[in-house]
Amino acid sequence: MSKIKVGIVGASGYTGEELVRLLARHPRVELTHASSRSLARTPLVKAMPQYREIIPADLVFTGADPAELAKENVDIWFLALPHGVAATFARAFVEADRRVIDLSADFRLTSTALYKEYYGEEHPAPDLLAAAPYVLPELMANDDWKKARLIACPGCYPTSIQVPLIPLLRAGLIKPAPGSIVINSYSGVSGAGKKVDAMYLFCEREGSIKGYGMPRHRHLSEIEENLSLAAGSPVVVQFNPHLAPMKRGIATTITVPAKGVAIDQVYAAWQKAYAGKPFIGILPTGQYPDTAHIAWTNRVDISAVADPRTGNLVLTSVIDNLIKGAGGQGVQIMNLLCGFTETEGLV
Amino acid sequence: MSKIKVGIVGASGYTGEELVRLLARHPRVELTHASSRSLARTPLVKAMPQYREIIPADLVFTGADPAELAKENVDIWFLALPHGVAATFARAFVEADRRVIDLSADFRLTSTALYKEYYGEEHPAPDLLAAAPYVLPELMANDDWKKARLIACPGCYPTSIQVPLIPLLRAGLIKPAPGSIVINSYSGVSGAGKKVDAMYLFCEREGSIKGYGMPRHRHLSEIEENLSLAAGSPVVVQFNPHLAPMKRGIATTITVPAKGVAIDQVYAAWQKAYAGKPFIGILPTGQYPDTAHIAWTNRVDISAVADPRTGNLVLTSVIDNLIKGAGGQGVQIMNLLCGFTETEGLV
Amino acid sequence: MSKIKVGIVGASGYTGEELVRLLARHPRVELTHASSRSLARTPLVKAMPQYREIIPADLVFTGADPAELAKENVDIWFLALPHGVAATFARAFVEADRRVIDLSADFRLTSTALYKEYYGEEHPAPDLLAAAPYVLPELMANDDWKKARLIACPGCYPTSIQVPLIPLLRAGLIKPAPGSIVINSYSGVSGAGKKVDAMYLFCEREGSIKGYGMPRHRHLSEIEENLSLAAGSPVVVQFNPHLAPMKRGIATTITVPAKGVAIDQVYAAWQKAYAGKPFIGILPTGQYPDTAHIAWTNRVDISAVADPRTGNLVLTSVIDNLIKGAGGQGVQIMNLLCGFTETEGLV
Amino acid sequence: MSKIKVGIVGASGYTGEELVRLLARHPRVELTHASSRSLARTPLVKAMPQYREIIPADLVFTGADPAELAKENVDIWFLALPHGVAATFARAFVEADRRVIDLSADFRLTSTALYKEYYGEEHPAPDLLAAAPYVLPELMANDDWKKARLIACPGCYPTSIQVPLIPLLRAGLIKPAPGSIVINSYSGVSGAGKKVDAMYLFCEREGSIKGYGMPRHRHLSEIEENLSLAAGSPVVVQFNPHLAPMKRGIATTITVPAKGVAIDQVYAAWQKAYAGKPFIGILPTGQYPDTAHIAWTNRVDISAVADPRTGNLVLTSVIDNLIKGAGGQGVQIMNLLCGFTETEGLV
Repeated sequence: MSKIKVGIVGASGYTGEELVRLLARHPRVELTHASSRSLARTPLVKAMPQYREIIPADLVFTGADPAELAKENVDIWFLALPHGVAATFARAFVEADRRVIDLSADFRLTSTALYKEYYGEEHPAPDLLAAAPYVLPELMANDDWKKARLIACPGCYPTSIQVPLIPLLRAGLIKPAPGSIVINSYSGVSGAGKKVDAMYLFCEREGSIKGYGMPRHRHLSEIEENLSLAAGSPVVVQFNPHLAPMKRGIATTITVPAKGVAIDQVYAAWQKAYAGKPFIGILPTGQYPDTAHIAWTNRVDISAVADPRTGNLVLTSVIDNLIKGAGGQGVQIMNLLCGFTETEGLV
Repeated sequence: MSKIKVGIVGASGYTGEELVRLLARHPRVELTHASSRSLARTPLVKAMPQYREIIPADLVFTGADPAELAKENVDIWFLALPHGVAATFARAFVEADRRVIDLSADFRLTSTALYKEYYGEEHPAPDLLAAAPYVLPELMANDDWKKARLIACPGCYPTSIQVPLIPLLRAGLIKPAPGSIVINSYSGVSGAGKKVDAMYLFCEREGSIKGYGMPRHRHLSEIEENLSLAAGSPVVVQFNPHLAPMKRGIATTITVPAKGVAIDQVYAAWQKAYAGKPFIGILPTGQYPDTAHIAWTNRVDISAVADPRTGNLVLTSVIDNLIKGAGGQGVQIMNLLCGFTETEGLV
Repeated sequence: MSKIKVGIVGASGYTGEELVRLLARHPRVELTHASSRSLARTPLVKAMPQYREIIPADLVFTGADPAELAKENVDIWFLALPHGVAATFARAFVEADRRVIDLSADFRLTSTALYKEYYGEEHPAPDLLAAAPYVLPELMANDDWKKARLIACPGCYPTSIQVPLIPLLRAGLIKPAPGSIVINSYSGVSGAGKKVDAMYLFCEREGSIKGYGMPRHRHLSEIEENLSLAAGSPVVVQFNPHLAPMKRGIATTITVPAKGVAIDQVYAAWQKAYAGKPFIGILPTGQYPDTAHIAWTNRVDISAVADPRTGNLVLTSVIDNLIKGAGGQGVQIMNLLCGFTETEGLV
Repeated sequence: MSKIKVGIVGASGYTGEELVRLLARHPRVELTHASSRSLARTPLVKAMPQYREIIPADLVFTGADPAELAKENVDIWFLALPHGVAATFARAFVEADRRVIDLSADFRLTSTALYKEYYGEEHPAPDLLAAAPYVLPELMANDDWKKARLIACPGCYPTSIQVPLIPLLRAGLIKPAPGSIVINSYSGVSGAGKKVDAMYLFCEREGSIKGYGMPRHRHLSEIEENLSLAAGSPVVVQFNPHLAPMKRGIATTITVPAKGVAIDQVYAAWQKAYAGKPFIGILPTGQYPDTAHIAWTNRVDISAVADPRTGNLVLTSVIDNLIKGAGGQGVQIMNLLCGFTETEGLV
C-alpha cells in the first residue's frame, strides 16, 4: 500500500500539533514536511515530546517560505495558519499543482465583502475563491468538490452549529425570523490557539467561564452564510461565544422557534441527512451530548428537545474543537479526497 | 455589641457548609446550632476540617427533630434542606416564634398549583405561603418583608437571571413574546449539592460540559413567576441549564428581543435599580462577567450588549452559586432583617 | 488476517472501560465478551457512549458467572476485578484451557504470606501462583513467560517505580540501605477506580493534593518484592502515595542514595536495559517527565538527575495509570504473547 | 480606632494582588499606595475587577521610583518584587524611616556568599542584612525582631518545610545525616507568579504534574540555612519541587530517618512548639493534610506518620502558597509588629 506525502504549514500551534499527531499515525500517509517560522531547524520531537514515538525521528521543522515549500515533493498540504497568511501559501501550492486543505478562514466565505467586513482586510486572493469549495463533509450534496485543488475546512464553532441546524433548514422544518435563532457556544481554552497572553494563563482560566467577542465574532460570517445557503434565504442569528475551563471541546446549545414542529420530524430529518455518516452521533431526546464523551475523537454528538410551552426546539451539540473542529476534519477531507476509508486514522 | 444566636438545619451539604463558614465568621452572630441527620453527635470540625479554626470547637451536629430544635434558644434558623422537608421545620420554628430563612424551594412560589406541577407533590404548607415573602434583597420594592417570620431565599439560577432582567421588565423596556427570552446557564458542580452519585465523580465531570433537565428544570417555575410579576403580564422563557467543569459559579447568558432599545437605556435602568447596592457590579458594555472574578463573594456582575443586526440584547451575569446563589444571600437577608450593615460578614 | 477472540471480566470500571476502548480498536482482536455484574444485559454502548462507534453495536454486558463464561469461545480473558474475586475467574478459565491476563493483585506476589499481610486474607489460589508469571514486559529476562496460561499484570504505582529503578539495581549501581529509597507518587483520581464515594466527587478533589495510605499502601508489597528480586537482596523502601487533581496519570519521584555513581552510569544502564523498547522514553538529565505528555499513551517517560551535594540520585517517571498502569500494559502483554507487533493498537 | 497606612510595591503580580485583597479588607489598615511599573496611573479596580468592592475606588497604581515613594506618608511598605530589585526599595524606605516587610528573597539569607551562589549576583545590600530578621512568626524565639525596620518574609516552599521540621530539629529528636532528609513539594501554578510564558498556559498545565529546578532550586539555600540554625549543625537535604494542576496550594511530603523516635514524641514536640498558634493545624497521625482544606487561608496543616519498617518519619504539610506562603504571612507579621490580633484580617 503506497502512501501519499503530506506536509503541514504552521505546525507548532495547537491545530498544527493535532495535525502532526493525526497525520503521523495515519496508515495511508507519510508526513514529510512541517513548517514553523519560529522553530525552523528544530526537530519536531523536541517541540512535541508528547508525540515522540509517533513522529518520524528525523523530521525537522522547515522554514515557511511559500516558494521554497511549493517545490517540495508533497501531495497534500495542510495550512494551519492565521487568515491572510494562509492565502499566500495556498496560491503558491496551487500554482505548483499541489492540493491544499486550508484550515484558516481565508477561503471559507464566498463573499469578499463579508470577508472584509469581518476580518478587516481586503480578501487576499479573490481569484482563487470560486474554485475553493467549503467542505463540511457530512453536508456536501455531491462529490464535485473532490476535483478541487484548494479546499476550505470549516471553523470549529461553525461545525458545531451547522451539523444540527442545516438538515432542519434544508428540510424546511424551521423558517426562523431574523435574530430568532439563539446560539450559545462554550469553547475549551485551546480554541484560542497557543497564544502566549495573560488571558490564557492557567491561573486566569481555571474556574472561569466568560463571554467574549459578542455580538459579532468572526465566525458569525461563516455561520450565517452557510445557514442562509441551506435555508435558501438570509438567516440572521444571535451567536454568543464563551470560554470554559477545559482544554478541549465545544458545547453548543441552539434555541430555534419551531411552532408546530414535532420532535420526531427533527430526528427524521437528522436520520435522513446523516444515515451512514460514521462521525455523527444522534442521541435520543432527553439525553445530552457531553464534551467529555467526544474529546479526542472526530465525532459530533447532537440531540434535540422540543418545548411545547414555548414552541421552541433546543438543539445541543458537542465536538472536540481541535479534531472535528480543525485537524480531524482536515484529515477526514483528505481521506475522502484520496479514496481512503472515511474514518482511517481518526478513531 | 451583643450577638444574635443562629442555627442551621441541614448543615452537612455544600450549602450548609457554606452557611457554617459565613455564620461562624460573622461578627454579629453566634452559631449555636447545626443539625445533620447523618452526622448527629459528630463535632463540626471533624466533618469540615477546612473551617477548623473558625468553627466553635465545641459545636456538635445535633439531630434533626423539628420539635426538639424549636425549643432551642435560637433567634434565626437557616434551612438548608430539600424541598418538602424544609416546610416541616419552617412550621415548627414559626410556631415557636422563631425567625426562619429558608433556602429550599418550599416558599419560593406563590402558586401551590405551580409547586405541584414542578415538584410533583402537594405543597407541604400552603397556609404559611402568604406570610412568607420571597426576598431577593436588591429587588424588594420596600421594607415590608422585614416583618415576616419566614422568608424564602431565591434559588441560584433564578438569582443570576432576575438581577439582569427584572429592572428591564419593570421599566417596560422589554416586552418579550412568549418563548422569545432565551436563557443559557452553566453551573459549577457544587450546584448539584453533595450528592454521592457516579455522575458527580471527578473523573466524570472533569473536561465535561453538558446540558440537563431541559426544557422544564424546576427553577423555571420560580424564574417565570417572578419575571411575570415584574412585567405585569405572563413571561414565558426558554431556560437551558448545563453543568460545567468547575466547583463554584454560575454563568448566565440571556438573549432578549428588544428592537429599538438603546444600550444606554439598559444601563440607565440598571443604574437606577441598583444605585447604592453593594453587591451588584455593572460592567461596561463589551466587558464580560467572569465566574472567577466573583468566586467566594456575594456579588452579581452583569453586563449587556446590544446587537443592531438582530434587534436583540445579550445580557450576561455571574454569581457564586454557593454564596449569592445560596448561603450568602441568606446571610445578606439576615443582615437586613437585623439592621446590620448589608455587607457584614460577606466580603 | 484472522483475529483472536478476547473477553473482559469486570468491564464497567475505569480499567474495564479502558480495556474496552483499546481492545475494540485493536486490529488483531475481536472483542466478543464483556461482563459486568451490575450492568448485565445492558448494551455496552449505553454505558460507554464515549466509545460508541468503536464498540460493536450488538455487544451486551454478560453476567459474571465464572463457570458460564469459561464455556465461551474466547482465546484470552482480561480480568479487571478486585483482588480475591479475580482468582475465582482465573481458576475457571485456566481449567477450561483459556489464557488469562489478570490486572488484579491476585497473582502479582510470589509470597502468599505477603499477600495475607497486605491484603488481609488468605491467598485465594496458592496452587496457581507458581505458574503465573508477573510480567512487566520491558523487564523480562527471557521469553519463558509466554508459555504461561495465567499472567499477572503489574500495578500502576509499581510500574512507574520499577521501570526507573530495576535496571540500576540489576546493574548493581545502587545498593540502598533499608528505608533509604524514598518514593513519592501522585496519582490521578481514576486510580481509585469508579468508586462512588464522597471522597471522589469533583468538588472534593478539585484543587486537592493529599497523601493517603502511608506507610503501608498495598502496592508496597509488590514494589519491594520485585525490587528485592532485582537487587538480589531485600530492598525496603519508603512509599508515599498521594491523590492529585487530574483524571489520568501518575508522577513518581524517587530519591536514592548513590554516592559515587555518575549520572552517565545511570543513563548507560537505562540505555542498555531499554534499547529497542518502544514504550520507554528516556529524557536527558535536566528535562522532567510530564504527565500531560504521556496521557492516553502506553509510555513510561523517565529521567534522572544526580546531586553531588547529597550523593543522591533523583529519578522521575510518569505513566498513564489507566494505560501503561493497567489496560495498555495488558494489551502489550497480549501483543507479545500472540506474536503481534508490540505497539499494535497502543499508539 | 485609628488605622495605619500601608503601601505595596509591585502590586500587579499574583502576590501583589493577594496583598491588595488582604490589606484592602483589613480593619486596622488603610491601603493608600500600590505601585506597578507596567500599570502606573491605571485604577486598581480596572486591573483587579475581582476585588472591585473592597479596593478603594480612587486608588491608582503609582509608578515605582524608590525615592519618590519614600517621601509618601506610609507607615509600612510591603515589597512584592523580584530579588535584587527589592533591596533598592528596602534601602530607600529604611533610610526614610519607614518599616518594610519584604516578600522577596533579598533578605532571607544571612550569608551573602550563599546569596551569590544561588541567585547568581552579588548581594544588593549586604549592609542591611544584619538588621533584617527573617521572620516565620510561629518559629521566633522571642520578640526582638519587632524592633527591626526591615523584615524578611519567608518563601512559600520554605514555610511549608520549616513548620513541620524545625520543632523536631530544635528538640534534637532528629539528627539527619547529610542528604537523608527527602522533601517533595508540589506547588499550584500561581507559585510561578503571573509570568506570561507558554509553560504556564492553561492548556499546558491542565492534567500536568512535572518536576523542575532539581537539584538546586533557589529556595534550597533558605531551607538549609534555617534548618541548620535549628539543628545547630549543617543540614543538607534533597529538595524536589514540582508543578501541579491547581491554582493555589503547596503540598509537601518529607521523609526523615528517625530510628527510635516514637510518633508521640513528634506530636509532643509540635504541640509544645505550636501551643496557642492560631494558624497551625496539627492533624492526628493517619489523617493527611489537604491543599483544598487550606486554600484561601493563612493556615499550615501538618501531620506525621512513623514507619517502623524503615525507621523513617513521613511528615506532610499544606499551605496556600499565596497566603501563608506570601501575602498572608506578610500581613501576619504586620499584625504582630503593630500589636493587632494575630489573626486580624486573615480568616
